Amino acid sequence: MKLGRLNHVGVATPSIADSITLYRETMGAVAIGEPFDLPAQGVKVCFVDTPNAQIELIEPLGDASPIHGFLAKNPGGGQHHLCYEVPDINEAKAWFEAKGARVLGEPRIGAHGTMIFFVHPKDMGGVLTEIMETPKDGH
Amino acid sequence: MKLGRLNHVGVATPSIADSITLYRETMGAVAIGEPFDLPAQGVKVCFVDTPNAQIELIEPLGDASPIHGFLAKNPGGGQHHLCYEVPDINEAKAWFEAKGARVLGEPRIGAHGTMIFFVHPKDMGGVLTEIMETPKDGH
Repeated sequence: MKLGRLNHVGVATPSIADSITLYRETMGAVAIGEPFDLPAQGVKVCFVDTPNAQIELIEPLGDASPIHGFLAKNPGGGQHHLCYEVPDINEAKAWFEAKGARVLGEPRIGAHGTMIFFVHPKDMGGVLTEIMETPKDGH
Repeated sequence: MKLGRLNHVGVATPSIADSITLYRETMGAVAIGEPFDLPAQGVKVCFVDTPNAQIELIEPLGDASPIHGFLAKNPGGGQHHLCYEVPDINEAKAWFEAKGARVLGEPRIGAHGTMIFFVHPKDMGGVLTEIMETPKDGH
């Protein structure tokens, strides 16, 4: 497997609304998507475009959201994960497992509508790593 | 100011040598630069290329390295900062200061040989943010 595009950096936030203001006003972002719920992941999501990659703002959705623990440690938010693209999600899963990296659960639909999985940060130099199948219609 | 390219994601590591093995063997990176010292910043640096952005591996250099504190909290390493490009470093500094974001110190030479500064994570949604002037010869 060859290292693919860095699709996005996941940034946890206690408030997507406040983060949108920050990215628009202070960072100068001009392309910010509409926030939407991703109930299966327990997050609300909003993509901010940079010229070459995206920032994925993620806010907890529901009491069981996996983001609550992160925000308890980082109340103001912070960098949560890195997401790389692969051409084939099942091949990628087999690759990481063969390397001894712990794949967290089965591939499932992600925020871009293609299949994704996460790899345990302890096997990835402390970086929670999302692997996503490249969207057929681009990025 | 308009949000620029995400030049790189800074990833702290206790060992660049071990991280290079991880990125090459497990992540499939094929373009990994030579590690080099950046004494002014107190870090050893190594760039890993993805097709659209870079991962900047940073390891402490010297007892006063600013990375020691991060690694004390995250012994296995982890995401440390995000770096965005701007056309003019002084204009960018004035912009962030006008927005009330705390610029940490004066612009100085960064790992790509152009001027950089950092913005306080508390003013950037918990993300330590590096701003760098775009290299004249590209990225």
